[in-house]
Amino acid sequence: MFKRIVLANRPTGDATQENFAVETFESPELNDGQVSVRVSHFSLDPYMRGRMDEVRSYAPPVQLGHTMEAGAIGVIEESRFPGLIKGQLVYGRLGWTQLSVIDGQQVQLVPESIQPNSLALGVLGMPGFTGWWGLLQYGLPREGETIVIGAVTGPVGSMVAQLAKLRGLRVIGIAGSDQKCDLALNQFGVDHCLNHRSYSDSLELENAIKEYAPDGIDIYFENVGGKLLEAVVPCIREHGRIVVCGMISWYNSGGLGAGAQTDSLNVPRLWRTILVHKLSVKGFIISDHWSHYEEFVADVAPLVATNAIKYLEDVVEGIERAPNAFIGLLRGDNLGKLLVKV
Amino acid sequence: MFKRIVLANRPTGDATQENFAVETFESPELNDGQVSVRVSHFSLDPYMRGRMDEVRSYAPPVQLGHTMEAGAIGVIEESRFPGLIKGQLVYGRLGWTQLSVIDGQQVQLVPESIQPNSLALGVLGMPGFTGWWGLLQYGLPREGETIVIGAVTGPVGSMVAQLAKLRGLRVIGIAGSDQKCDLALNQFGVDHCLNHRSYSDSLELENAIKEYAPDGIDIYFENVGGKLLEAVVPCIREHGRIVVCGMISWYNSGGLGAGAQTDSLNVPRLWRTILVHKLSVKGFIISDHWSHYEEFVADVAPLVATNAIKYLEDVVEGIERAPNAFIGLLRGDNLGKLLVKV
Repeated sequence: MFKRIVLANRPTGDATQENFAVETFESPELNDGQVSVRVSHFSLDPYMRGRMDEVRSYAPPVQLGHTMEAGAIGVIEESRFPGLIKGQLVYGRLGWTQLSVIDGQQVQLVPESIQPNSLALGVLGMPGFTGWWGLLQYGLPREGETIVIGAVTGPVGSMVAQLAKLRGLRVIGIAGSDQKCDLALNQFGVDHCLNHRSYSDSLELENAIKEYAPDGIDIYFENVGGKLLEAVVPCIREHGRIVVCGMISWYNSGGLGAGAQTDSLNVPRLWRTILVHKLSVKGFIISDHWSHYEEFVADVAPLVATNAIKYLEDVVEGIERAPNAFIGLLRGDNLGKLLVKV
Repeated sequence: MFKRIVLANRPTGDATQENFAVETFESPELNDGQVSVRVSHFSLDPYMRGRMDEVRSYAPPVQLGHTMEAGAIGVIEESRFPGLIKGQLVYGRLGWTQLSVIDGQQVQLVPESIQPNSLALGVLGMPGFTGWWGLLQYGLPREGETIVIGAVTGPVGSMVAQLAKLRGLRVIGIAGSDQKCDLALNQFGVDHCLNHRSYSDSLELENAIKEYAPDGIDIYFENVGGKLLEAVVPCIREHGRIVVCGMISWYNSGGLGAGAQTDSLNVPRLWRTILVHKLSVKGFIISDHWSHYEEFVADVAPLVATNAIKYLEDVVEGIERAPNAFIGLLRGDNLGKLLVKV
C-alpha cells in the first residue's frame, strides 16, 4: 500500500490542514506507454496554492479528491514505455505521493551531473532554472546596475542574487525575517537585505530601498507582489525591467478579490510609471522554456559544484508532514528550498 | 510683435480656457548658437495635458507664465548657429508661439521627402513615428494575429492600424464616436471598430471585443488607459504584448488620485494576468528613439505618397484658437491629427 495526499476541499483564504487528506492506495496496473515511479522527494512551492483555487491559473486547478501536484524525483519501478527501464532516476510532475503512474513521455531522466539528486528539485531544478532564465532573458542585467529581489533566500531568489553578483550588479534582497537577511548577506552574498516585516507600510519600505539605491533601481525580480511591489515601483529608474515569475503574497488571499487591492498602488499609478519610466514588464512561466533546461544545467552545475553558487535545502521527512510544511511555506517559515522526502 | 500662449495657472481636473493666456512679445536678440524660427504649424497632442500638472511626467512640467510646449515646424528667420541659414524649414519643440528662439542644435531640418510639410507633424512626424516604432519594436506583429488599438483614428492609432493591416493582422479599433468608427473602417481599413461610448461599462466592452476575437487578442496598443484597459486585459492571450505609449483617459484627471482608480481592474488582477498569461508590457517615449527617425521616413514616406498609408489632418487656423482646440482634443472632439496653423 502507498500513501498520497489529496485536495479534500478548497481553501477560503489561507490554506489549512483541513484542505488536505491522506489516502492509501494499491499500485495500479500500467497501460502501454506508462511507467510507475517510486517517489523519493517532491518539491513544495508557493504556486501550488493557486492550484487549490477553482480559478484557472497557469494550469487547471487540482480537482477535489485528486492528488496534489508537485514536481518530484523518483526511481522507475515498472515501465511499459520503450526507452525507460526499472531503476532509472527521473523527474516529473509526480505529485504528493509515494508512487506515481504517468506517461513515460512526461518524465525526464535526471542528468548525472546533478549530485546529490535532490538538487534536481532546487538549485538545479525548476526554481534555479526559473531564476537563471528570468534574470538573463528578461532582466538583461548589466554590470553596475542595481537589482531588487523579493524572497531573496528562496530557491529562485537566491539563484538570481548570486548570478547577479557574479555579473557585477548591486543586489538588494528582501526577506521576511532577520534570520533570512543574515542568510542572504552571509551565504548568498547580497549587498543589502531588508526584512520587510520591520516596515509598517510600503512607504517605509520604499524609503529604505531608496537609502540603499538613491539613484533608483534597474531591475526588480518579482515573485512576491503586495506591499513589496508597492514599495519597489516608485524606485524604478528609466528603462527598468520588472521580471514577474510569482506573487506569493497574493496566492493565499485568492488574489482577485477587492480585499486584495493594495493600498497605495493603483492601476493608473502603476500604468503611468510603466509609461513615464519606459519600463519593460515581463511575466513568464518556466515550463514554457524546458527546451533550454540542459543549457542551464551546463552553465550552472559547475558553479554549484565549485560552490560559486550556494544553495540551502530544507528537507521534511515523511509524506504526512507535507501539508503542514506547505502551510508554513506560504507563511514564510522555512529557510531554503523546501522538499519532502517521502 | 508676436503672440504666444502661456500657462496662466494649473488645472484642477479638466483643463479649461482659464488655464491659458495670450501674450505678445517682441523678437528677442539672439545669442551665439541660437536661431529664431517663424512658426508655421504646431501640433496639439494629449501628452501636453501632463505638462500642465506640477507632477513630473516624462519631462518637467511647463512653468507658470511660460510658453506651452509643442512640436512645431517653421522657417528660420535669423541664425547665429553655423550650418543653419535663413529660409530653411525646421522641426523642433518650438511651442505654442508665432516666433521661437532656440538653440540651433535643438532643431532638425525637415526632410524634403515630406510633402506637404505639415506631415512632419503628423503621419510622418512624431505621432506616425510613435506608431511605427511601438508596433514593430514592441508589438512584434505576426501575420494572422489580432490587435486591439485604442484611439484608432488618432494619428498614432491610425498608423498602427494601417501598418498592422499591411502585415496581415486582424485589427479591432476602438474609437469614441460612430463617426470615428466609420472613418476607421472606411478610411483606415480596420476589420472592426467599437465605439466605446456605446458600452456602459468595461465588462460590456470586454464582451464586445470577445465577440470579434473569441480566441483572444495578441497585441494591445495602449494609448488610452481607463475603461479600455480594463476591458482589454481579460481578452489578452498567452504571450500577448501590451505597448504603452499614452493614457489619454487619465491625463485630465491627473491620473494619480484615488478617484482615478478603475473599478474592475485592480493591481493584483492586472499583475496576475501578466504572470499567468506571460505578457510583455512595454512603456516607451518616442523621443528616446529619434536616431531611428530617418529609417522611419524612408520606410513610410513612400507608403504615404502612394496612399497605402492614409492620414487625416484637422487644421485650426490662428494661434488664439489653440487652447479651445486642445480642450476639445482631450474630450475627443476632433478627427485626425490636430494642428494649429499659426
